[in-house]
Amino acid sequence: MNCELISVGTEILLGDILNTNAQYLSKELASLGIGVTHQCTIGDNRERLLSAIDLAFNRCEMIIFTGGLGPTPDDLTKEVCSEYFGRKLSMDEEIAKGIESYFKDRNRPMPESNLKQALLPEGATVLHNTCGTAPGLIMENEGKIMVILPGPPNEMTAMFQNSVRPYLMKKSECIIKSHTIRTFGIGESAMSEKVSDLLFMENPTVAPYAKSGEALLRVTAKAESEEKADELMKDVISEIESRLGDYIYGIDVSGTEEALSILLREKKMTVSFAESCTGGLCGKRMTDLSGASQIFHCGVISYSNEIKEKVLSVKGEHLRKYGAVSAVVAAEMAEGVRKLSSSSIGVAITGEAGPTSGDGKPVGLIYVAVTDGEKLLLKELHGRNGGDNCREYNRIFSASAAFHAAYEFIKGSVRSESLREFTESR
Amino acid sequence: MNCELISVGTEILLGDILNTNAQYLSKELASLGIGVTHQCTIGDNRERLLSAIDLAFNRCEMIIFTGGLGPTPDDLTKEVCSEYFGRKLSMDEEIAKGIESYFKDRNRPMPESNLKQALLPEGATVLHNTCGTAPGLIMENEGKIMVILPGPPNEMTAMFQNSVRPYLMKKSECIIKSHTIRTFGIGESAMSEKVSDLLFMENPTVAPYAKSGEALLRVTAKAESEEKADELMKDVISEIESRLGDYIYGIDVSGTEEALSILLREKKMTVSFAESCTGGLCGKRMTDLSGASQIFHCGVISYSNEIKEKVLSVKGEHLRKYGAVSAVVAAEMAEGVRKLSSSSIGVAITGEAGPTSGDGKPVGLIYVAVTDGEKLLLKELHGRNGGDNCREYNRIFSASAAFHAAYEFIKGSVRSESLREFTESR
Repeated sequence: MNCELISVGTEILLGDILNTNAQYLSKELASLGIGVTHQCTIGDNRERLLSAIDLAFNRCEMIIFTGGLGPTPDDLTKEVCSEYFGRKLSMDEEIAKGIESYFKDRNRPMPESNLKQALLPEGATVLHNTCGTAPGLIMENEGKIMVILPGPPNEMTAMFQNSVRPYLMKKSECIIKSHTIRTFGIGESAMSEKVSDLLFMENPTVAPYAKSGEALLRVTAKAESEEKADELMKDVISEIESRLGDYIYGIDVSGTEEALSILLREKKMTVSFAESCTGGLCGKRMTDLSGASQIFHCGVISYSNEIKEKVLSVKGEHLRKYGAVSAVVAAEMAEGVRKLSSSSIGVAITGEAGPTSGDGKPVGLIYVAVTDGEKLLLKELHGRNGGDNCREYNRIFSASAAFHAAYEFIKGSVRSESLREFTESR
Repeated sequence: MNCELISVGTEILLGDILNTNAQYLSKELASLGIGVTHQCTIGDNRERLLSAIDLAFNRCEMIIFTGGLGPTPDDLTKEVCSEYFGRKLSMDEEIAKGIESYFKDRNRPMPESNLKQALLPEGATVLHNTCGTAPGLIMENEGKIMVILPGPPNEMTAMFQNSVRPYLMKKSECIIKSHTIRTFGIGESAMSEKVSDLLFMENPTVAPYAKSGEALLRVTAKAESEEKADELMKDVISEIESRLGDYIYGIDVSGTEEALSILLREKKMTVSFAESCTGGLCGKRMTDLSGASQIFHCGVISYSNEIKEKVLSVKGEHLRKYGAVSAVVAAEMAEGVRKLSSSSIGVAITGEAGPTSGDGKPVGLIYVAVTDGEKLLLKELHGRNGGDNCREYNRIFSASAAFHAAYEFIKGSVRSESLREFTESR
């Protein structure tokens, strides 16, 4: 079965909100073996919505809509979809009561307009909204399916998992399964060259892509069952592993932070971070993962030199002699936060994220240090110097590099030096 | 002039990457008075790309493509666009040399396939890529325009700013200007009710939307010049201000963190954060803003109770008696981080982000504290308890609430209590 996604909302076309729903649904549908051939975004406009529906149903059997179910007058997805299938709308008393009690439970007065959300087309399957007031809908008509979901991502994803996924699992004949092989330290094109002959296969397929300084390979197979899909992919994945070797840091992990977290858990180790240019991003990414408290004790965002000295025990003379963006300061920050928190390892990042340099060092220069109190791993990195989002890129890239350096340090796959010898030589 | 965006990439349709380019371009085009009526995403597929071009040119004068300019064989946007306009491709020696020196400068061997990026259609304007190797293109043909940009966001945005924006400014007849009025503490529908009569205006228009626990109103005017657009919007904005009052925390700021940052700068004050459930998100958001070092000195991510005691001087008996998620601990964390960093104010967040509770307290319960060492502002918040991304929502929401609480505290627009009296009463 093929499917198209139609996101409805003038605010998306104006760039006010980022369409995360399309990504979420595409990923979910892919895992169910349902191909998404087009994603389309249109405004809250009756004529354009009608012609988008017409066009999509000429190419596929199912449309999933998101957005335009809200209480305001410009929300009209449900109305237009019902019109397209020739269905009348009428007030559902039970849903109206549910909306009233949603507001009562939260001690908020219910705006009259919210009752519009209780108008339902005849013959539709109603999808319960566990996070908000607008119900979703499934309508079938002569082999064509419309699934209508609310726009707010939390409402949409909950409704998809609770109601739409079970519905679709019954409709799909085969499954598609992917594995993502993640590398660090090699560019997309250099990685692709190493596996260029594999990029033309049909089942499984192998596709390269790039993401914030990382290059990834996705292997995808279509089969009757997950087991058969894995069987199809096994040899290709081994071949890729042997060609890319240590560039690979993980398969099916969400990023370097997850690879590090898994390793820390395995080794029953803990980590702390001292962050300068990343400003909390490392902590944020570590704690995006549920259960982080077992491995992550403490982060110090030492944005000023004073805090580097006072909280992390970085030597004032070193800050003056080498500057805050230096290998020496990175090493002292890492050991400082490790001691402060009694963690197994301390990780530090200091750098010039840009757009301008505060320290006289070039924008994009970043130092990462990892230590367990005895061994020390130091990395000098060169991010971007200039360009519109060089600050954002440098911050994401240096956080990823820090997680990766800690991963390599624990694995023992890179050479480290003696912390004492390094410190005493200054 | 109307424009459509076509994002090319199977990885977007599979949900592997989030399409941030469409948002960026839509926002930029809106500011130039160029309407985007459709955003469309299709895979790296010749037939589908050709029919998408055909369809779009039936509805508009300009298409902006992103993606499919890479070195791998599945990248074919340039080839298909050239074919549609009947243009031949030939190797551009200068660009080929540029690509070679890009790799030489980075001490990396150039994969042979990268030279494919130096193939150019006849009669095209070439757009220099300051962040990568694939050049962009503009092709005009009988009043129809194709703008072809690389997919990686840093390359695309730099190229848009350097080359495409100046090109488009010459083409556009009028400008569209928007102001965004941001509120906190009121839901989207309750906000909309208060201004419901204004939502039907034509020029300027007023549109409500919601974003991670915040409700916003966007006022947009179309005019010959920025001054005339502002003149059109002035009275409507005043009217909205008088109706929404203290719910409004800023106009045209990017979020609560920017409103707080502006206020801190005005008052020459500094802030530090003690974060538990937000895990670094407050620091990350403060330092997303360039120049944060003047107002933000220090963050402590105290994910464990040990760090709360050791680094932030939270009383052990209070952690045992009230639990880490409590008003008392929040107050002590705020004062602890303030003292540690000698900042004007300290802000603390402690809560149960979910998905499960570690402390026996309900998921979604969050405490925020703000103090200057004398006065104390405490807030008890109730985020989401359940749903697929309740963790992410609760973290974003509680960080926003913390910024907003600090903003209100400094403004003096809320009642605070005495820190000493609060502490001594425990």
